[in-house]
Amino acid sequence: MKNILGVKLPEYIDGYGTILPFEGAKNGGFIKGRRSTAPACVLPGEKKVYYDLEGLFNTLNIKDGMTISFHHHLRNGDFVLNMVMREIERRGIKNLTIAASSIFPVHAPLVELIEKGVVTRIYSDYISGPVGRAISKGKLKHPAVMQSHGGRARAIESGDLKIDIAFVAAPTCDTYGNINGVEGKSACGALGYAVSDCEYADKVVAITDNLVDYPVYPIEIPQHYIDYVLAIESIGDPKGIVSGTTQITKDPIGLMVAKNAAKFIKESGLLKDGMSFQTGAGGISLAVAKEVKEMMEDGEIEGSFASGGITGYIVDMLEEGLFKSLFDVQCFDLKAIESYKNNINHQGMSASLYGNPHNKGPVVNNLDVVILGATEIDTKFNVNVTTGSDGVIMGGSGGHCDTAAGAKLTIIVSNLMKARLPIIKDKVTTITTPGESIDVLVTERGIAINPQRRDLVEKFKDSKLPIKTIEELKEIAESFTGKPEEIQFDDKIVALIEYRDGTIIDIVKKVKE
Amino acid sequence: MKNILGVKLPEYIDGYGTILPFEGAKNGGFIKGRRSTAPACVLPGEKKVYYDLEGLFNTLNIKDGMTISFHHHLRNGDFVLNMVMREIERRGIKNLTIAASSIFPVHAPLVELIEKGVVTRIYSDYISGPVGRAISKGKLKHPAVMQSHGGRARAIESGDLKIDIAFVAAPTCDTYGNINGVEGKSACGALGYAVSDCEYADKVVAITDNLVDYPVYPIEIPQHYIDYVLAIESIGDPKGIVSGTTQITKDPIGLMVAKNAAKFIKESGLLKDGMSFQTGAGGISLAVAKEVKEMMEDGEIEGSFASGGITGYIVDMLEEGLFKSLFDVQCFDLKAIESYKNNINHQGMSASLYGNPHNKGPVVNNLDVVILGATEIDTKFNVNVTTGSDGVIMGGSGGHCDTAAGAKLTIIVSNLMKARLPIIKDKVTTITTPGESIDVLVTERGIAINPQRRDLVEKFKDSKLPIKTIEELKEIAESFTGKPEEIQFDDKIVALIEYRDGTIIDIVKKVKE
Repeated sequence: MKNILGVKLPEYIDGYGTILPFEGAKNGGFIKGRRSTAPACVLPGEKKVYYDLEGLFNTLNIKDGMTISFHHHLRNGDFVLNMVMREIERRGIKNLTIAASSIFPVHAPLVELIEKGVVTRIYSDYISGPVGRAISKGKLKHPAVMQSHGGRARAIESGDLKIDIAFVAAPTCDTYGNINGVEGKSACGALGYAVSDCEYADKVVAITDNLVDYPVYPIEIPQHYIDYVLAIESIGDPKGIVSGTTQITKDPIGLMVAKNAAKFIKESGLLKDGMSFQTGAGGISLAVAKEVKEMMEDGEIEGSFASGGITGYIVDMLEEGLFKSLFDVQCFDLKAIESYKNNINHQGMSASLYGNPHNKGPVVNNLDVVILGATEIDTKFNVNVTTGSDGVIMGGSGGHCDTAAGAKLTIIVSNLMKARLPIIKDKVTTITTPGESIDVLVTERGIAINPQRRDLVEKFKDSKLPIKTIEELKEIAESFTGKPEEIQFDDKIVALIEYRDGTIIDIVKKVKE
Repeated sequence: MKNILGVKLPEYIDGYGTILPFEGAKNGGFIKGRRSTAPACVLPGEKKVYYDLEGLFNTLNIKDGMTISFHHHLRNGDFVLNMVMREIERRGIKNLTIAASSIFPVHAPLVELIEKGVVTRIYSDYISGPVGRAISKGKLKHPAVMQSHGGRARAIESGDLKIDIAFVAAPTCDTYGNINGVEGKSACGALGYAVSDCEYADKVVAITDNLVDYPVYPIEIPQHYIDYVLAIESIGDPKGIVSGTTQITKDPIGLMVAKNAAKFIKESGLLKDGMSFQTGAGGISLAVAKEVKEMMEDGEIEGSFASGGITGYIVDMLEEGLFKSLFDVQCFDLKAIESYKNNINHQGMSASLYGNPHNKGPVVNNLDVVILGATEIDTKFNVNVTTGSDGVIMGGSGGHCDTAAGAKLTIIVSNLMKARLPIIKDKVTTITTPGESIDVLVTERGIAINPQRRDLVEKFKDSKLPIKTIEELKEIAESFTGKPEEIQFDDKIVALIEYRDGTIIDIVKKVKE
């Protein structure tokens, strides 16, 4: 056998295997049958940029039954999902699976596509608005699969969730597909939820309204994961992408909850040098952050890191030296975006690095304290953040079960009653996070420690904090509200709640109309 | 079927598949048969740090026949490979494959392990010193496989080169495996060649002499790729890791070559705004950079990027605004490390992003001009940088064939004669880079354009530069040196030259003694 340069080669070499003869540098990029890295590769001289959706779609060759993915950093300002789906409908493509890291009210047009059979399966970590209601009414052909942020990364990386084409909203993108989220009129900051999609989808399209010369810097997601760049006028509505500021609750009951939570953290012994901390962008969560901040200042405590979606409030704590570093998967406000752009201690993280349970240790594994919310919690401490009091899908785990599994101390903060309903039930409507991961429930009227955490029960035995059993708190709530009516469901399964490891922790049934 | 929380589940759901019931958050990390991402995962509470090699090895369970990998950012100062191999020999493990991105004279102890059958296969991109000589003498049981930097990343990512355990020299590492190369007494800068190893090896060990608290920042290689951290006294000799400064040649012939190359670039029309450029750390290459720098300053040209291994000289050009950004796979001197640490426009890149031909477009695809060296070049413009004038392995492609394939203009710069031997031959001893990727040879006595580049031949038809055919240059050289003697080889194949796409471009035979 000879290769194209005339070199004589054996067909097989012991200790190496079958010899593939050199066929030329220009052909060598990608030949059928050649061992390869990517399902398709981009050769020198090939261009990636398209300026119209139709031209791009002619190249993409989307077919019935494919799985396409989206990420949610543009939140309720996102134009990308609806734009892509409109073109798909126009072309008569059917039976698609949508893997969107989250779905918001802005994605209401999906409901019609579900009804028409254009979309027959949905994977998502969080669904609020009309799409959740449509699923709960049984309109989607197959059950929706509700994942966690870490579980979604696990599913994509392991091949459980195979993505044919990923569409990536790119606030800034250069002509060869290098992306960042910190520049441009649609800047949203960290792009952590899009990373696994880019790394593992067969084809990846970056859609940008800020196409720049090569190379962009900083690069968050690099060119070698991107097949095509679509440059359009606008990928989103800045008003829906980030709030200018995130606000601490002004509700006096919420503030009382936050104070109780802060005192509990202090007495737990975790408020010390090296502490790591995560809290959300909700009003009570931010109020806890404020309390923690003041305690850290008073105690001159230098924490280790804060993680999760990041708000300006956490940025303040970084800048004050209360934390050494931030791990940021998603910026919640303009201050967070600015900091992520300019402060090297404010680091990005992918959803996999954040919470994938099947890699070699996500960031959640190193959390000391996480503050989480609950729509419902039951006497076994199982938490529901997926369905509302009417049994309809209105949320999802996001990072809830990921952080709860990893943190040393997982605290649920909530008013004891919401909209005149008690949050504690005998059995939650939907289990999002298992009780074994929840350590304590903090309300305005008392604190319940999970009896499985005997060390905590023991530690707080003589505490002056209002420690109660969860059954006692439930009775207090019901003394005000009475026992709420049971929600009525049909037998049809409309959604599967996939725990972060890929097992099914619960199912959601169709609501009775 | 019920899961551990008592939720009734069907065994199978249409449109989803087989249901795995939830078995608890603590067990959920990694169960045999569960769909997963990594071959092993790290659960909350598990520790990664070891303080002695023996304890680590007891855990690692290295077996006969495994493939273990190393990267070469510590260059000729590296202690890690020898240390690991000593322990392997002590344990009586045999028949290993070593996949080291480069091998240097400091790795001379490998020769004995080759002779003893501890090491029977070697994959590398560059081998200089005693190991190369041992291979050329036929001491290694199976042929060595010589890859390019981009080809190595391709092979690892595609599964062609399966790594059981990767050992990563980590100048700074935190207790959970986050790594950077910019801090610590063994700082070496960018860690681009280690990235694919970390992403794809079954197990990854970070070996550090600067263990720091969690989390380190900046993070170059994140924790979720790292299984274990070994903290030791010293991973390398700083004197061998980086040179304080890299020096432009003072040889008048070399300077003449550089001037000719610079003039050629200018006349080619590529010296204009947006130009991208790569050159090595060799004396002539740096002299070309100096000429290019002056031409850019004179012409007020703003280039796009420079790439490759980065020297202080290229950093100066970045800081002057002659380039917008750098893509750095490896820092060659202290100035480059400082810049990589502090300047966000000085970006790191993995070997895959640098040159893997089978991803969605490596950086080399966007190169305008690359300056490369040659040990030999033949009249078909094939280049040898793998074997010396005695036929013995003393180098390898590194990024040679990767950049040559990608760049619009690939220039070989060399003195016409080296050690009284002509560099132009009828046929190079070993083909590292195919002639079709080489556009021009620049020497002190003339410039030869590859006739396949008809556009260039046409463009330089009336040039005042000393344009000659490569045959003419060969005759000039031979008029001084005479025709060199042919090297004598045995029939035994001692190395395969793998082109970047995984095909075999040439073989190296055993030298006659």
